[in-house]
Amino acid sequence: MTRTQMQSALNSLKRLKVDLYGKDFLLTWDRSLDELKAVLTVADIFSELHKAGKSFRVFDTGLAISIFRDKSTRTRFSFASAVNALGLGLSELDEEKSQIAHGETVRETANMISFLTEIIGIRDDMFLGEGNRYMREVGAAVQEGFEAGVLHRRPSIVNLQCDIDHPTQSLADLLHLKKHFGSLDKLRGKKIAMTWAYSPSYGKPLSVPQGIIGLMTRFGMRVTLAHPKGYGLIPETVALAEANARASKGSFTIAESMEEAFANVDVVYPKSWAPFQVMQRRTELLKKNDRNGLVELEKECLANNAQFKNWECDDAKMKLTNGGKALYMHCLPADISGVSCVQGEVSKEVFERYRLATYAEAGNKPFVIAAIIFLARISNARKVLQKIVKSKRH
Amino acid sequence: MTRTQMQSALNSLKRLKVDLYGKDFLLTWDRSLDELKAVLTVADIFSELHKAGKSFRVFDTGLAISIFRDKSTRTRFSFASAVNALGLGLSELDEEKSQIAHGETVRETANMISFLTEIIGIRDDMFLGEGNRYMREVGAAVQEGFEAGVLHRRPSIVNLQCDIDHPTQSLADLLHLKKHFGSLDKLRGKKIAMTWAYSPSYGKPLSVPQGIIGLMTRFGMRVTLAHPKGYGLIPETVALAEANARASKGSFTIAESMEEAFANVDVVYPKSWAPFQVMQRRTELLKKNDRNGLVELEKECLANNAQFKNWECDDAKMKLTNGGKALYMHCLPADISGVSCVQGEVSKEVFERYRLATYAEAGNKPFVIAAIIFLARISNARKVLQKIVKSKRH
Amino acid sequence: MTRTQMQSALNSLKRLKVDLYGKDFLLTWDRSLDELKAVLTVADIFSELHKAGKSFRVFDTGLAISIFRDKSTRTRFSFASAVNALGLGLSELDEEKSQIAHGETVRETANMISFLTEIIGIRDDMFLGEGNRYMREVGAAVQEGFEAGVLHRRPSIVNLQCDIDHPTQSLADLLHLKKHFGSLDKLRGKKIAMTWAYSPSYGKPLSVPQGIIGLMTRFGMRVTLAHPKGYGLIPETVALAEANARASKGSFTIAESMEEAFANVDVVYPKSWAPFQVMQRRTELLKKNDRNGLVELEKECLANNAQFKNWECDDAKMKLTNGGKALYMHCLPADISGVSCVQGEVSKEVFERYRLATYAEAGNKPFVIAAIIFLARISNARKVLQKIVKSKRH
Repeated sequence: MTRTQMQSALNSLKRLKVDLYGKDFLLTWDRSLDELKAVLTVADIFSELHKAGKSFRVFDTGLAISIFRDKSTRTRFSFASAVNALGLGLSELDEEKSQIAHGETVRETANMISFLTEIIGIRDDMFLGEGNRYMREVGAAVQEGFEAGVLHRRPSIVNLQCDIDHPTQSLADLLHLKKHFGSLDKLRGKKIAMTWAYSPSYGKPLSVPQGIIGLMTRFGMRVTLAHPKGYGLIPETVALAEANARASKGSFTIAESMEEAFANVDVVYPKSWAPFQVMQRRTELLKKNDRNGLVELEKECLANNAQFKNWECDDAKMKLTNGGKALYMHCLPADISGVSCVQGEVSKEVFERYRLATYAEAGNKPFVIAAIIFLARISNARKVLQKIVKSKRH
Repeated sequence: MTRTQMQSALNSLKRLKVDLYGKDFLLTWDRSLDELKAVLTVADIFSELHKAGKSFRVFDTGLAISIFRDKSTRTRFSFASAVNALGLGLSELDEEKSQIAHGETVRETANMISFLTEIIGIRDDMFLGEGNRYMREVGAAVQEGFEAGVLHRRPSIVNLQCDIDHPTQSLADLLHLKKHFGSLDKLRGKKIAMTWAYSPSYGKPLSVPQGIIGLMTRFGMRVTLAHPKGYGLIPETVALAEANARASKGSFTIAESMEEAFANVDVVYPKSWAPFQVMQRRTELLKKNDRNGLVELEKECLANNAQFKNWECDDAKMKLTNGGKALYMHCLPADISGVSCVQGEVSKEVFERYRLATYAEAGNKPFVIAAIIFLARISNARKVLQKIVKSKRH
Repeated sequence: MTRTQMQSALNSLKRLKVDLYGKDFLLTWDRSLDELKAVLTVADIFSELHKAGKSFRVFDTGLAISIFRDKSTRTRFSFASAVNALGLGLSELDEEKSQIAHGETVRETANMISFLTEIIGIRDDMFLGEGNRYMREVGAAVQEGFEAGVLHRRPSIVNLQCDIDHPTQSLADLLHLKKHFGSLDKLRGKKIAMTWAYSPSYGKPLSVPQGIIGLMTRFGMRVTLAHPKGYGLIPETVALAEANARASKGSFTIAESMEEAFANVDVVYPKSWAPFQVMQRRTELLKKNDRNGLVELEKECLANNAQFKNWECDDAKMKLTNGGKALYMHCLPADISGVSCVQGEVSKEVFERYRLATYAEAGNKPFVIAAIIFLARISNARKVLQKIVKSKRH
């Protein structure tokens, strides 16, 4: 970015109507287009500042808390990077270390960790119907604590992946597309295929495909969702994508094969997930801690999956895309045939061709998270950012 | 707090004789009344600064180490918040991660973690006769290291709960009382009932009730301790409370029922603990790693506990207190009947009425810990604090 | 250090040819004598600044990542201290917490943790032939990411102990010797015995003895390595020590008993390790996860070890050293007879006499690590250091 481009990016923030200050960031479809654009613009500026070796620290002290109810490397380190860059200290609430596992109520814990806390990042994607609800419970709890004067400030909650959406991922993906095509405007009319892909494991969350169809349909893209019969997403999220597409004058269609979905598209996003109904059954079994039931379900699902080994993103299918040159995307880690598994979501050849591109895609995430936190916690965000850009601090 | 109140609080520090610099903070009864008052005053000021969005960071760099030999959410995050607010980095010594479990001596480890360390917070409340002794061992070790030139500075130890006392909790509780009644002076003559309460678990530490009777008796309060027969505290701590009460012209009495203890009191603190003798037996069994013995002891104790299910703080008993309006206190998490257990320490109704008040009570803890660290590590504490208050840094 | 000594140390940096900026620090023998001298000089200055209560923070924000593939207290806290002192935030990649254990490639993870990262510290000493290779893989991965524009900056890798070398330990040891004898020049001709010692455990890494013979031979020391038959080090590291000794006009000899090695030496470093061949077999068994094989191997090795219980550093053997007053060194924790085990590497009497000296030896490590990071990440290191020394910032 030249100095002029940086200033132009800063100026563009003036034209956006943004109401993120003091708010939680839980679902992209809770936020206006202007707000999403502001996040991407700030993320872009932060990335450029980092590239130039300039600090964008805005906090002298303060805590960021992360609660990971599922394993994570990428999102964990993205969050750690983002809060560090802004000047916050990170404390992780590990449920095995803390008393949260001993019947302590969410309400109470939420306040106990929030006395000097600016931001709470939560990943809770295991249980259908639970993750996003848990985040809202935490948000309600700190709101109550704030209103009662228990908390001096109400921390903001950031969804680091739930059962419904994975907004920091989908926004990192959107930023990847913005850079790839040149601008958000240029996404209009571009075709993207969000497709199921075969994996030797089962039980992967639905949040990524749901996040992608829920977000990309808002920017006038022509989105196709494809999966084998019985591998559907949460119906409400599909309905939402349809409504979004109508509103943005893009389109949303469902295809029945990877080949059909790939035909002439500009972008492919082939990724495994567990069918909605399986996730429902799994959630019940997990709640009951029914180990035998879980083993049975896994057996059944893997057998089911095995019928769809041809749902692999390989060179032959890539040839069906627009000029044979669609952009391959993945949230990582991908199940790469012959690399991380015998047969998986993507062939070794295709993945290798786009490997560094997927790394760059992931590289947007720390800046997206930092932008979300910045806009949620800094009241006069644009002016503060203008000051940072002008300052000589390194 | 108005600007005038803030300045008056600052001025009050001038009149206190404080010798906390470079010291450990292990038991409230090791410290003078002036020192305890200074801690509360600084905590109050820090809390006000935080409310106003002002930083009270005093360290550019430096480590705080925490050693948790028992699970913790509240104290862990209070410590994390406090050290972050002062500008220190936190490193947790997890005994499973480190070599401390492999026969490494306390003496050596204490020095190994202290080369650039300002403060060591320790929670060690599982073994009777061990926790506080361990803290003193660590203190002696870093003293030796400092005197030998191994350490450039001698870190201070803060007791984050031991077998005897829980000073950061009891001081947070005292600050709660100070705010509730308006000043420390107004505590004089006020009645507080520290009582045992029924819990479906067993083995809770003695440090909270001991800390409360050991501290509140110093401020002229009329303290009643109540528990079923055989549920006594460490005898020395009871003797100490008696002596404190004589010295402060308060009083200390022992009652035999929750009803008797609650009669006409201003404050109630109903909380479960394991009898002193049980903790002694448990300590021996834990040391021997005698699993069968522990299971037997738990069975015996739970059967014993079950005789005292009526030791529940409910509306009927609250009516016995002064005007039926005593302040309910708890260090959290409470065993709430019908919420976190079938029957527990407190009825759902009573707890709900005071729920947010107990959160506020807990909210004092980060500021109390920060105040203790500040006074232990900053030589000209009052002047530095005066500067912070006057500065415009945010 | 007086102000003049400090300035003289700073000036000495001008005369050194140092090419550490942007580099990894993996083996001391990858680096020139000038570079090693620069590390020690900067470490010395940092230590003096810390003693004087002066901050040497150079980063406003930025992450340091540590990857510990083996338990650690000392090195973990040394690294935590060093990065904190420089202003970096620490994030630990715990392989159990992250997805690294689930087949994720090193290449990908290396990039995922590096987007805003300045330094990656790695301890990987369990598998012969693996640890150092893993570090180079991580280095190659971030290099690729940097060249592809995925990473804005390429983080530097610091070896916190591998299968071959333990450079931060051996440099801390070298700094200890420098202080003990007055200067690096005075090490010329001094005799040091790096000897095996008996331990009731088995499987201790080879990196310390290898690091010591590989480093001390470069400074003109007369190095003797001693161990029972069959307890050899990796042959290449022994050959390297021989070549180093020839080049530096020191010497390198192998003795067959502790007594022979101790004769008239100025320094002794008695420490247990597992024979090279055992480590090879152990590595194979660990890779296959062959539990029975590991139990068998341990049995065999402990029986073998038991033949050499007389390899204990005791008063009688210490009398054989130069004037009976050789400096005893150890990387800690030592197996101390009658303290941490029935019989071990060193007698209680000898260890107690040098106990605080070994603490001081360990105390060099945080400053050595800070110096390595400083030289790897700050392009105009000498000038920046000069500024820090002159500044009044505390």
